[in-house]
Amino acid sequence: MFGEHPATQSLESLSDVGLLDTTLRDGEQAPGVSLSPAEKAHIARELDAAGIDVIEAGSAVTGPGERETIRRVTELDLDATITSFARNVEGDVDLALETGVDGVHLVVPASDRHIEGKLSATREDVIADTADLVAYATDHDLWVEVIGEDGSRADLDFLEELMGEALDAGADRVCYADTVGHATPDRTLDAVSRLADLGPTSTHTHDDLGLAVTNALVSLAAGADLVHGTINGIGERAGNVALEEVAIALDHGYGVETMDLTQVHDLAQLIANKTGIPLAPNKAVVGENAFTHESGIHTDGTLKDESMYEPYPPEKVGRERRLALGKHAGRAGVEAALAEHDVDVTDDELDAVFERVKDLGERDKRVTDADLLAIAEDVQDRERERRIELLDLNTVAGSGTPTASIRLLVDDVERTEASVGDGPVDAAMNAVEAALGHDVDWSLDSYHVDAITGQTDAVVTVEVEMSRGDRSVTVARSDADITRASVEAMVEAIDRLVETESGPLVADD
Amino acid sequence: MFGEHPATQSLESLSDVGLLDTTLRDGEQAPGVSLSPAEKAHIARELDAAGIDVIEAGSAVTGPGERETIRRVTELDLDATITSFARNVEGDVDLALETGVDGVHLVVPASDRHIEGKLSATREDVIADTADLVAYATDHDLWVEVIGEDGSRADLDFLEELMGEALDAGADRVCYADTVGHATPDRTLDAVSRLADLGPTSTHTHDDLGLAVTNALVSLAAGADLVHGTINGIGERAGNVALEEVAIALDHGYGVETMDLTQVHDLAQLIANKTGIPLAPNKAVVGENAFTHESGIHTDGTLKDESMYEPYPPEKVGRERRLALGKHAGRAGVEAALAEHDVDVTDDELDAVFERVKDLGERDKRVTDADLLAIAEDVQDRERERRIELLDLNTVAGSGTPTASIRLLVDDVERTEASVGDGPVDAAMNAVEAALGHDVDWSLDSYHVDAITGQTDAVVTVEVEMSRGDRSVTVARSDADITRASVEAMVEAIDRLVETESGPLVADD
Repeated sequence: MFGEHPATQSLESLSDVGLLDTTLRDGEQAPGVSLSPAEKAHIARELDAAGIDVIEAGSAVTGPGERETIRRVTELDLDATITSFARNVEGDVDLALETGVDGVHLVVPASDRHIEGKLSATREDVIADTADLVAYATDHDLWVEVIGEDGSRADLDFLEELMGEALDAGADRVCYADTVGHATPDRTLDAVSRLADLGPTSTHTHDDLGLAVTNALVSLAAGADLVHGTINGIGERAGNVALEEVAIALDHGYGVETMDLTQVHDLAQLIANKTGIPLAPNKAVVGENAFTHESGIHTDGTLKDESMYEPYPPEKVGRERRLALGKHAGRAGVEAALAEHDVDVTDDELDAVFERVKDLGERDKRVTDADLLAIAEDVQDRERERRIELLDLNTVAGSGTPTASIRLLVDDVERTEASVGDGPVDAAMNAVEAALGHDVDWSLDSYHVDAITGQTDAVVTVEVEMSRGDRSVTVARSDADITRASVEAMVEAIDRLVETESGPLVADD
Repeated sequence: MFGEHPATQSLESLSDVGLLDTTLRDGEQAPGVSLSPAEKAHIARELDAAGIDVIEAGSAVTGPGERETIRRVTELDLDATITSFARNVEGDVDLALETGVDGVHLVVPASDRHIEGKLSATREDVIADTADLVAYATDHDLWVEVIGEDGSRADLDFLEELMGEALDAGADRVCYADTVGHATPDRTLDAVSRLADLGPTSTHTHDDLGLAVTNALVSLAAGADLVHGTINGIGERAGNVALEEVAIALDHGYGVETMDLTQVHDLAQLIANKTGIPLAPNKAVVGENAFTHESGIHTDGTLKDESMYEPYPPEKVGRERRLALGKHAGRAGVEAALAEHDVDVTDDELDAVFERVKDLGERDKRVTDADLLAIAEDVQDRERERRIELLDLNTVAGSGTPTASIRLLVDDVERTEASVGDGPVDAAMNAVEAALGHDVDWSLDSYHVDAITGQTDAVVTVEVEMSRGDRSVTVARSDADITRASVEAMVEAIDRLVETESGPLVADD
């Protein structure tokens, strides 16, 4: 495209594109990430179930713990090819062999910066060592992929020579690696075309320039057929290419299937939780807001035709559409939200609710379900009968056992309870449960604390989503005291969930 | 590239690429975002200072508050062209005129799904209305860009006709809009090439398929010269294209300058804080980890040659390189971190510290400065003399005034203090300050709480970074009680910052 080289093939014509997930190696090398053997095995099993073709399970040379982990993955006997990273030395291959992997990724330096600056070697050394080691690994029945590290900054003639020698020595495939996320699509097209002429070629792209997906697709158009990446795009620095983006772009854009996309959201959540690397709300495919509509025009359009503002239905990637209320809300969106909570309104009432939702949104606020219901009650002049109200809360925490007392008004009867817990919020919620009797059938679906920056006196916002049966409700509370904000939000959510209950909430003593 | 169409021009040859930032309109339409007039004016001023060419300040029809906001932006008299969004009706243009904007973005439906499904109109209606309205707006001396909404799903012959009529009627430019993030690069190349043959063309891409950057660059290669997007890529659903990614790709990859990249990190922080939409750590260019190296191979390489594992120096985008310690740490990285804290070690000691840093990292832990220093003391068999130690902590919070008592050992003297605060952590830290005297000269540079999912008894990890003079230290503590974890981490950080103090920490009474 960008440059003078034509692509080798159109993406529609691709019949066999594979995905290699390197979450357990590149992903784990992201700062602050450390996965336990059990977590790695769990992730590997889910990647395999989602149809990922190759799983790089780690780097055997890292240590005995890592080898034990790789062994746990190989012992799962998955459909995916399981590999270990190995440097260009025989010892690394020997250690990989101990773990029972199907193959190795031999990583050899390709740019002069890496050959000379890092290893003080020569191009000739690298070629000779690579050929020897490929022969050694294939002699031991390993599937072998040779990755030319920093290939995007290599002399392309040398890269071609090196990879040609690797294939001649018996490597199953070679890989173009944009190790530092440096390459333009033009450069990528040029380099991959040359390698793909030699034999089976993979591509390994990083996102430092925001071009990881572009370069992965360009590589496929240039003749590559296996894409290295990670779910959620985690990895060194700005990360590897996000496999879920490559997969949806190929599927939606070109009708090319690579993996079971319906599992991608669960996979993304699993990996975010295990690695501790959160997803931005606006992350493509798997971000919290990727299928959320707030603005009036978009909500209105979506209510008329679900595909009005969506390229593909959320179910395709295992998700659901969500309509949110806020400053940009439209009348139709507010009406739909009220209907979800079984609130009927006249046209005039709807106008009034709509105006107040927008006002609230404009005051820099998220509009939660609880806010919407309170506005509707006020507009309709309905006296809201609170079933559960928090009258008083005290928590003690610190060096001793966290303890809380609460005073609740439940169906107009005051109930006071105290309880301990793992922290002050936990203690308080245990006390609430004690006050209501132990048959609590609601669940806390999400508990989110806004990121805090600055000083210890900053106001924090806690937003909870709780559900009971098929009803769910969101409530937010802001306070400089995170304990109070949390307990107030949860008690109000519970109150909303039980408000249509017919019998008494607490059985007579 | 991908398809049969050649690009119109190579990106190297581009001389005049403009950036349009729509954070204040598309960005604000992201779920949960509401910016105050002062915040919008602040963001507009910073966008302008960074050299953004066009700023879409809002949509005048949204309401009087929004018009007041747009007016505040226009009154700043910035270099950037300031515009308002307007639908295809005269009233919207009249409202935009009230705000003093330089121009309008007329958004007209381009796909049949939008023309028929949303507006129940015909193609002929749209063409006629557009031509009339362009004439009306230009008669009022407005700069006019016509955006064909859902253009990526439009019949391209109709899109071409519609945009041709708009230009004939006097529009300054037209815009190809991939409103729902649906298009392949091939489709984009085709559509934009046809529009760019007619007149000045902008491109507006969304990231639902992860292709926002790809499609923005393809558009430029097809003849577009103005890219719509947002800093941080916020916007509806998965967001608009991230302008900082377009800018760095053009600069690093093709030598094409668009904006002052050194300001991009501050801009990203400002927008993340004001909108409340956090950046993922692995976000390209502006994510926390984009220039952080942890793994041994990468840290080692980076210490030898800074560009070994970076495509461009972090200073280029207003940032600094960071070396982190963890499971994948290398010997050289550990040595560099010790040197930063003025700890000299022998080779044997370094080996021992290195092994223990890796062990700690493997136990699913981040390795903070405090961890590293404690390991070094243990290895060197140095008795660590704690200057400040937390002996006891009690906090009371809930419905009343948050209160805390602490018992500290300061230079071997017990000191007990109580204090109130805005929350229990704030109260406890006020008590610590009282115990030490009020001349505290440290600052809390960051306070981060890991996202919590699941139940109220979840263990949370608090990580703080505190500094004093030119020394800074990171400490992490995990506990089910967020109050205790926070106070313990801060007291330990303060202890580390004062450990080389020569005089007594508390003046004699």
